[in-house]
Amino acid sequence: VIHLDLLIHNARVADVFRLREFAGWIGIRDGRFVYVEEGAPPSGAVAQERLDLGGSLIIPGLIDAHMHIESSLATPRRFAQAVVPHGTTAVLADPHEVANVAGEDGVRWMIRASQGLPLRIFNAIPSCVPATSPDIEWTLSVFDAATVRRLAQESTVIALGEVMDYGQVLADGERLRGMVQAAHETGLLVEGHVPALRGADLSQYLAWRITSDHTIMTSEKIREQTSKGVAVMLTARSCMPENLAAVNTLPDRSRILLVTDDVEPSLLAKGHLSLIVQKAIDAGLPPLEAVASATIRPARYLGLRDLGGIAPGFRADFSVMEALAAFPPSQVFFGGVRVAGDGALIARDLPVTPAPPAGSVLPGPFSARDFRFVPDGGGGQVTANAVVLKSTTVFLTDLERVPVRVVDGYAELEAGLALVAVVARDGSSKSVGVVKDFGLDAGAVASTFAHDSHNLLIVGRNAAEMARAANSVRETGGGIVVVAEGEVIAMLRLPLLGLLSDAPLDEIVRDFKAVEGALLDLGVRHERPFFMLSLLALSVSPKFKFTDKGVVDTEARRLLPPWDADPCSARPLGAVGRLSM
Amino acid sequence: VIHLDLLIHNARVADVFRLREFAGWIGIRDGRFVYVEEGAPPSGAVAQERLDLGGSLIIPGLIDAHMHIESSLATPRRFAQAVVPHGTTAVLADPHEVANVAGEDGVRWMIRASQGLPLRIFNAIPSCVPATSPDIEWTLSVFDAATVRRLAQESTVIALGEVMDYGQVLADGERLRGMVQAAHETGLLVEGHVPALRGADLSQYLAWRITSDHTIMTSEKIREQTSKGVAVMLTARSCMPENLAAVNTLPDRSRILLVTDDVEPSLLAKGHLSLIVQKAIDAGLPPLEAVASATIRPARYLGLRDLGGIAPGFRADFSVMEALAAFPPSQVFFGGVRVAGDGALIARDLPVTPAPPAGSVLPGPFSARDFRFVPDGGGGQVTANAVVLKSTTVFLTDLERVPVRVVDGYAELEAGLALVAVVARDGSSKSVGVVKDFGLDAGAVASTFAHDSHNLLIVGRNAAEMARAANSVRETGGGIVVVAEGEVIAMLRLPLLGLLSDAPLDEIVRDFKAVEGALLDLGVRHERPFFMLSLLALSVSPKFKFTDKGVVDTEARRLLPPWDADPCSARPLGAVGRLSM
Repeated sequence: VIHLDLLIHNARVADVFRLREFAGWIGIRDGRFVYVEEGAPPSGAVAQERLDLGGSLIIPGLIDAHMHIESSLATPRRFAQAVVPHGTTAVLADPHEVANVAGEDGVRWMIRASQGLPLRIFNAIPSCVPATSPDIEWTLSVFDAATVRRLAQESTVIALGEVMDYGQVLADGERLRGMVQAAHETGLLVEGHVPALRGADLSQYLAWRITSDHTIMTSEKIREQTSKGVAVMLTARSCMPENLAAVNTLPDRSRILLVTDDVEPSLLAKGHLSLIVQKAIDAGLPPLEAVASATIRPARYLGLRDLGGIAPGFRADFSVMEALAAFPPSQVFFGGVRVAGDGALIARDLPVTPAPPAGSVLPGPFSARDFRFVPDGGGGQVTANAVVLKSTTVFLTDLERVPVRVVDGYAELEAGLALVAVVARDGSSKSVGVVKDFGLDAGAVASTFAHDSHNLLIVGRNAAEMARAANSVRETGGGIVVVAEGEVIAMLRLPLLGLLSDAPLDEIVRDFKAVEGALLDLGVRHERPFFMLSLLALSVSPKFKFTDKGVVDTEARRLLPPWDADPCSARPLGAVGRLSM
Repeated sequence: VIHLDLLIHNARVADVFRLREFAGWIGIRDGRFVYVEEGAPPSGAVAQERLDLGGSLIIPGLIDAHMHIESSLATPRRFAQAVVPHGTTAVLADPHEVANVAGEDGVRWMIRASQGLPLRIFNAIPSCVPATSPDIEWTLSVFDAATVRRLAQESTVIALGEVMDYGQVLADGERLRGMVQAAHETGLLVEGHVPALRGADLSQYLAWRITSDHTIMTSEKIREQTSKGVAVMLTARSCMPENLAAVNTLPDRSRILLVTDDVEPSLLAKGHLSLIVQKAIDAGLPPLEAVASATIRPARYLGLRDLGGIAPGFRADFSVMEALAAFPPSQVFFGGVRVAGDGALIARDLPVTPAPPAGSVLPGPFSARDFRFVPDGGGGQVTANAVVLKSTTVFLTDLERVPVRVVDGYAELEAGLALVAVVARDGSSKSVGVVKDFGLDAGAVASTFAHDSHNLLIVGRNAAEMARAANSVRETGGGIVVVAEGEVIAMLRLPLLGLLSDAPLDEIVRDFKAVEGALLDLGVRHERPFFMLSLLALSVSPKFKFTDKGVVDTEARRLLPPWDADPCSARPLGAVGRLSM
């Protein structure tokens, strides 16, 4: 006699192994599928619960093989609350924002905060702490091979996170090589991020046994990466018809994966990996292929043998929907238990988020004097190494020599310019520079969320409002504050390490939208102002960025002072100490 | 500047990721591919050695995901000597013959004997020690969950070997369940063997998270197993046009694998996994699909991330050939080093095979009295529960009640009958029965190689010649001996545990053929006499077999006495003690 916890009949099943649908029944016991059969269940089956699906479709839970929970600005439990109703039931999360701010203890905190949720959260050990090097920007700690070996002991850790610093790979940098070797020795996958390389350079990068790339933007690179044995991860940005057409011509698509990478909180209300599945279908990927690329294919790539399919022995993580990719699902099951319905998590007590590691501090308090352009208080005219924003849609910067009038150390800026300050979280270093075409005509904004090191970033037209914004962020324990005419006009609190909020996601979204609205009102030109702001300090993306150490020429990997007599005087890395404190 | 150990140019490369060939060059360093590029190498590349392939093809080394080295009757080093020249560079070996004879120490011995060879030998822990239970047949030891946990610590162990005892799975047998749980807890794959089941019963078996099946003989079962998430392993027997046609219609063939399972020594001179690749192609699988199913697909199934492809970071295991599947290769490389050419291993010192575990003994010596049919020496007529061989090509048996005249305990057999004796290796139990249509008209044969428990098996027309054959096997330390007219007429020595020889493979093949020839000369009717002989004691295959405990009704899993008044008096398992000693 067949004994089951749950028997689901009159169902259609999405068979991601043979890429078909069939009518049948499902038997679940102890959280796993036992029976997945065509036709009707045997009359003798005994089940604690029966569910007649009336012909609705069952698809496996979606698995996101590359993502960062922090981009949602929500704690893992709030993130789970948001994404599980959209059918995501497993993720490989790379907590590299938290790691940069809180080090190894931060990673452990994210792992603990991910337990007991109706979402399987696997972890990658961030390889980018810091993203570049301590000479370029401040981080709490520097991860190395020993860090990897220690964190690899955590049962949810299955990968080393995206190796972004391809320059260090090509230069055979010792610390990064040690981390990668430690990852291989402990059985971890090593994730890639390599937009810039092709041909032999790409191979040299991959020869470190880096097995994925989610930065692929062209059909040529899809083909090259596939030929080189790499898992091709398509994001929202790369799901273009030309790319999906290239995928469709591959005879073996078992390493084509759909991933989210970063998803802003305001998007999470609409969906999660489901949005990428839909986008890929819209761009020409057959629906069953799209579902396979978000279920069994990532599971197999990640070595998660019992996830991603509706088959005997697999975990009973699945969604019920009217048709393939007709998201959101009407019901979501996790380990055989219904956990979401009609777009919302079914009320249950989610584990309380533990307190983040102690010792995470924010600098300050500040006065206007801290944001003088010429710290020793001089006057006259200097020439700034200004970072210029080149686009309102993509994020690309350049450098421009801009004359700046200084009175008593304070900059008096022409229209179109703003001051940028980055302060190390421990207050040990600071720089004040000039940005052009950011679009902030008045007021100031301060943020503790600023890729990848998340030092305190302040942009403003005058030093007093910058100090006001910075102090306000400090007082709230972290987040984003917009100041205009001396008053706080919008605020998103991120009290956990200055990166995350444990508030319900709709509150996060409300405040996030308020901050974005305030920035747009103040004249910020980018269509995604928070995104642009948070990338101003990302020292690994082209071409010029700000850190607490000065202006970074990211391609040459060297520092420029915020102002000087001549840009040709830029000193190479290593010859630069503190620039402006 | 590019620095390499070996640069291979003017090559065609089999791209098993995109299922194409391309013209290009390869750079190897530290045993791995670094560069795998289309076109010509850059002029600046510095290489210790250069190889111009003149347009020849490079394919990845073949990977055999399911096999038993013991079927070659050769030690791992002699096996490697035979198969590497045919392009096999990695195997998952399940040493279940050695394990049944020598227990856990036997498995460790096989692992040690597999080290340092130009062949990557990964191991499965046998799940069939014993194949049935100690009540049905003698084995040295009984493997359980603790055995699995101990052996899983060995670095080459990646799987629990084929779970053949589906009856115990369906009955939720405690010992087997414990072994499978231990395998999952230690990260091992669990291999399957399930010819008999379909539908819900098959699902119940697979729900133990058993992930492969190499017993699939029909296209319907290929489709069912694929839908149920199982790796479909095709052997020589299942590579039929109808089956490959079914494979060709699958949109995702990433879990279609080609495997050898058992290969007799005489076949190894012709090839190894290469033979299955050729057979699959002959039966309709496109050549690049066949190569993928013997390289990257098994590698990924087994979780061997850096094997199976010609791509940056992968181990440089590959063959050079004139065309896809034009085996044998002209050259074979292992870890970037040329190890075989033109069908032979390049002379090198292979590690000496270590001594097998102590304590392995063979029973005896024997006299004719030991093979009396009625042990207490009675006379008159009895009725034997004779096992009847039903075919000369496949191996299927039935039971027949046969009258046997007994004089002084000795059987006087009619034509077409022969005596079968099985003696436990430690001499603790023995049974003597009758086989019909085996075809041995005269003489006797004794073998210590007799699936799966490899107790001493003797078949003969009279007790004296059976004793002669058994004593001869004992004196040689194990193997197969054929006796006719009181003299040894053919002998294959298997001095290592009575299962393996460390002699060069051509000597093993010579003696193996002599034994087969002698058996055919004596009238044995099967086209593969050694194979038929070795399966006479296989207590898990239908329908009736011999063990040291008596005649086994393998489907009912119960013992029958070799002779009695009425076959209906068969006693169920557990009620039977020693039957005939």
